[in-house]
Amino acid sequence: MLQESGGEGLNIGIVGGGAVGLLLAAYLGRRHGVTVYTRRPSQARQLAEHGVALKKDGETSVVAVRAQPFAGAELDEPLVFVTVKQYDLASVCAQIDAFRRVRTLVFLQNGMGHLEQLTMFADKNVLVGVVEHGAMKLDDRTVAHTGAGKLTLASRYGSLGDARELREGERGFPIEWADDWERILVDKLVVNAVINPLTALLQVKNGALLETAPYRDMMRQLFDEVRNVLPLEDANRAWERVVRICQKTADNYSSMYMDLANGRRTEIDAILGYVLKQGEARGAMLPVVRFVFCAVKGKEGRETDG
Amino acid sequence: MLQESGGEGLNIGIVGGGAVGLLLAAYLGRRHGVTVYTRRPSQARQLAEHGVALKKDGETSVVAVRAQPFAGAELDEPLVFVTVKQYDLASVCAQIDAFRRVRTLVFLQNGMGHLEQLTMFADKNVLVGVVEHGAMKLDDRTVAHTGAGKLTLASRYGSLGDARELREGERGFPIEWADDWERILVDKLVVNAVINPLTALLQVKNGALLETAPYRDMMRQLFDEVRNVLPLEDANRAWERVVRICQKTADNYSSMYMDLANGRRTEIDAILGYVLKQGEARGAMLPVVRFVFCAVKGKEGRETDG
Repeated sequence: MLQESGGEGLNIGIVGGGAVGLLLAAYLGRRHGVTVYTRRPSQARQLAEHGVALKKDGETSVVAVRAQPFAGAELDEPLVFVTVKQYDLASVCAQIDAFRRVRTLVFLQNGMGHLEQLTMFADKNVLVGVVEHGAMKLDDRTVAHTGAGKLTLASRYGSLGDARELREGERGFPIEWADDWERILVDKLVVNAVINPLTALLQVKNGALLETAPYRDMMRQLFDEVRNVLPLEDANRAWERVVRICQKTADNYSSMYMDLANGRRTEIDAILGYVLKQGEARGAMLPVVRFVFCAVKGKEGRETDG
Repeated sequence: MLQESGGEGLNIGIVGGGAVGLLLAAYLGRRHGVTVYTRRPSQARQLAEHGVALKKDGETSVVAVRAQPFAGAELDEPLVFVTVKQYDLASVCAQIDAFRRVRTLVFLQNGMGHLEQLTMFADKNVLVGVVEHGAMKLDDRTVAHTGAGKLTLASRYGSLGDARELREGERGFPIEWADDWERILVDKLVVNAVINPLTALLQVKNGALLETAPYRDMMRQLFDEVRNVLPLEDANRAWERVVRICQKTADNYSSMYMDLANGRRTEIDAILGYVLKQGEARGAMLPVVRFVFCAVKGKEGRETDG
């Protein structure tokens, strides 16, 4: 029934049919047999019938994938990417039996609050990853690849396992391998903690944080609190990275800006919520972090309520 | 040439033809001889020719006033109200000779940063006042009285002088007399420091600060820093006042919100800028105040630059 992938291809499961899940499916599906596990049966039907469509540079390519609802599924792929947002991870983990036959799991959530949850998979190979691509879900089976970046992976438990077979990734979708899982997550978290909430609060593109001197001040104030409670090796280097990414994405609206603009839930809990918890654990006062956290929470409540 | 006011009427000068200046002119001009001193000659011509128009509850009344440009004027009214914004006060004070014949001066600026400037008038009767009216300037000679309130006056130097003659004010424009000039300014400043910048930053009506729980948190965080550096007798009472005014004006947009929305300069320097200076003088860290100050400064720069 299920088409087996031949040759060098792996069987890969992808849990979550959001922008990241569809992007992965479109690129990895070229050489591997991909099954997408969605929340809504209707999305699984769409994907199974028509494949996943990737829009890039004005061109659309379609890749055939298998798909089924995650609820009730028993994943039989040796390698599975979990791409749901952090706030949906608990409901995925609650269905832990679904992963019984999986050997290698890759978690692509933002933030670091989900790391505790991963201990329940510590008997498998567990990797964490950071996605640095611009991607926008256009409909249930279509994703636009708006910014070329990379996927960085590192091992959290066990070895790289089946993920090793992915090697350098695909054309247009490179994979980098890192030794230090904490480093890649912290580096991403710092960037997310500064650029995302500020652009969402001020309702500006990323570049405005650098162009407008008082906004740059705010960015520094927020960074100075964040860095105090995260295990950063080199704060100057981290600050320079934030500035560089802000420059490189100057014309983009951050995902948190877009989430608020579209009345969606944001990842503020996974990002500044996690930073606040680190502050509490260390007894560090984080007045600016708390203030910005409340601002985004308030905006979120007002947008999603009505 | 100039029409003398008769009977109980005083001659009153009003420096500044903004919303507050026109509101004063419209009410005080009923019984007193009022001269409005404007920055632009064209506004003075309009006022002198057509009078000042007051719109209230759907009705318009017109009161005849005298008017002339402030530049080069020699004020010969015994009682003069200075109604310009705090950021324009320096240019008014630079023309100190204009006030040689004035006996009693009333300053109606927001904030407290201008108090030092008033020492140069300490040989006269100097009063400070707090305007709690909703007023909107519709054109050069028309003001809408959108919220009935009161004018509170207190003596800073000398006696109440000629201001005493105003007694309880006019119908629709009551005057209250206070003993403690610092108290009335601080009370107003606390309210302005919390409600104005937050509504401007979050782009919401005053009431949203209470309705949305995380916004109320932000209001409290900002208040807790502000109160630390202002001479407040009773912080609980002050907080209750902020909440009460927020409730009473729930459906209003704050003046700072409106200033930003209309690309005008805000009074952020006079308000949070003053609070920050008090913090520096006392060595108090005010991270949230500084953050909000930068946010409004940044928005102001982006709006007024184009």
